[in-house]
Amino acid sequence: MLRVLAGEVLQPPPIWIMRQAGRYLPEYRKLRSKAGSFLDLCLTPELATEVTLQPVGRFDFDAAILFSDILMIPYALGQDLAFVEGQGPVLGSLRDVDELDLDGVRANLTPVLETVRLVRSRLPQEKALIGFCGAPWTVATYMIAGRGTADQLPARRMAIEAPARLQALIHVLVEASSRYLLGQIEAGADVVKIFDSWAGVLDDEGFERWAVAPVRAIVERVKAAAPHVPVIAFPKGAGARLIDYAEKTGVDAVAIDWTMPMRLARDMIAAPVTLQGNLDPLRVVAGGAALDEGVDAILQAMDGFPHIFNLGHGITPDTPIVNVERLVARVRGRR
Amino acid sequence: MLRVLAGEVLQPPPIWIMRQAGRYLPEYRKLRSKAGSFLDLCLTPELATEVTLQPVGRFDFDAAILFSDILMIPYALGQDLAFVEGQGPVLGSLRDVDELDLDGVRANLTPVLETVRLVRSRLPQEKALIGFCGAPWTVATYMIAGRGTADQLPARRMAIEAPARLQALIHVLVEASSRYLLGQIEAGADVVKIFDSWAGVLDDEGFERWAVAPVRAIVERVKAAAPHVPVIAFPKGAGARLIDYAEKTGVDAVAIDWTMPMRLARDMIAAPVTLQGNLDPLRVVAGGAALDEGVDAILQAMDGFPHIFNLGHGITPDTPIVNVERLVARVRGRR
Repeated sequence: MLRVLAGEVLQPPPIWIMRQAGRYLPEYRKLRSKAGSFLDLCLTPELATEVTLQPVGRFDFDAAILFSDILMIPYALGQDLAFVEGQGPVLGSLRDVDELDLDGVRANLTPVLETVRLVRSRLPQEKALIGFCGAPWTVATYMIAGRGTADQLPARRMAIEAPARLQALIHVLVEASSRYLLGQIEAGADVVKIFDSWAGVLDDEGFERWAVAPVRAIVERVKAAAPHVPVIAFPKGAGARLIDYAEKTGVDAVAIDWTMPMRLARDMIAAPVTLQGNLDPLRVVAGGAALDEGVDAILQAMDGFPHIFNLGHGITPDTPIVNVERLVARVRGRR
Repeated sequence: MLRVLAGEVLQPPPIWIMRQAGRYLPEYRKLRSKAGSFLDLCLTPELATEVTLQPVGRFDFDAAILFSDILMIPYALGQDLAFVEGQGPVLGSLRDVDELDLDGVRANLTPVLETVRLVRSRLPQEKALIGFCGAPWTVATYMIAGRGTADQLPARRMAIEAPARLQALIHVLVEASSRYLLGQIEAGADVVKIFDSWAGVLDDEGFERWAVAPVRAIVERVKAAAPHVPVIAFPKGAGARLIDYAEKTGVDAVAIDWTMPMRLARDMIAAPVTLQGNLDPLRVVAGGAALDEGVDAILQAMDGFPHIFNLGHGITPDTPIVNVERLVARVRGRR
């Protein structure tokens, strides 16, 4: 995967899948039922390491991604956080930006960095370890709304009605995310990925200010300290705005969601950048011809281009294991 | 507006706004409280006519759009429909496609066509009257889920897991929508618009099959009978797939949602097509500089191109009237 991130074309392409460690795996569900809360699981290195490694062991994926959550940053900064069964994350009310504790990033996330160290020590050398964080805008949408909503309206309103207030929060999140990613790199992450799940809801000016600029700031910080570590960004819903996203942010690779045809992404994006993606997770739920055809179309579109095979969004808990096996075999040309 | 739809560039551009008749207007709320259900309101020509005309009278918009709902088609086909306060539309369980009654379109929607006649007779001659329907895919998502959901997953699953079943439903909806739009045109609609609010969630193959092909089929039917009537489509969330959407569907104009920069749409779309859009409705809620800057950026991007000013999504109920006045004045260069 590191070769492809450096621009090399490999056939078959490397493959991993978003949310590859998680509820669709019986071994995850078994371990999960023994752990305490989801947050406890993320903060217990021995368990988080085991969960991180599970899908790599089972499917021989080309990369492991740290098992964690994008909301570990608000947690580290001192905002209350709980993951409520059937409801998702619930955050405490947002403090004044001045009260957010940047020193908490290293102090409170030590167990996560320990997980990175453990995973790297146990992961076969030829597999890449991906560290990650949420993009400042996306993390801010949760911090402001206190939970995930259908449209993240509270943060979108703040972006337009109180931009200075949002800017102060984003500034803290850029700093926290940079420290966090550099911590993960020091602990052994080979690649880092920035998830901007809510980039797509912003308008033109908002996208530049809240999605592009903060990611660029993080990339600059990371590259200054660790120039050799590739950065992937996932600006979900960016659509045509992918055209110059990599150029503007400086990332090495862009993850493409399932609504953007790979052939269009390939043709539109001028920068020499690696693309990752983008099978609709529903095709893996369905299996059969729907899966095969989806895989084949993506492989064909990206033939001759630097490409990391992945889904266009996280795998869903109801995905049958046999379909994931079929997916991997199909990508590797073994069925 | 008809001149711009024929490709002419006008300065200032014509303006109307999505959901311009509705809850943000005190005169609408007053009338609404006297009517029965929302469905009754849509089916009472005298009241629906008044509501349709309200925003044109107040703001001097360049077009009226029929006050109705995209779910009038399932209602006409025999699926139970109610609009539940605070909950949105609730549909009865979906019948066998064979039981959907195509003759119901003209029979059950006679009052809507009567509204079109009344509006056209009362609307100043220089204002355009826009008829509309939902696109088959979007209407199908509601018919299948029975309501609006955050991601319309039930229909998306059917699209991948049981495409033949969905195809049969889409086939009926293409026929029903064509008859319905032609009925509106006969009754006096000058323009028709097809709303595909859920086009964006489909993957590459799905977009071609479920968003592009059905709209093309409707456009062919409408153009065969009424070649002089312009057709606008709104494939919300289409993103980069707008590049050849107008060419493939045959529409005269494409409405652009607020997440697609107009400058990118303008540059990407090769076909000689009019663009409509696309101010973020939140900027109209906010007013002030956020509103002015958003308006100016769009006017600047579309300077010299055939453009109808509009929002990038429906106006929201909490929008202050003064901000709509400011919007119209700004677009017309009067502040």
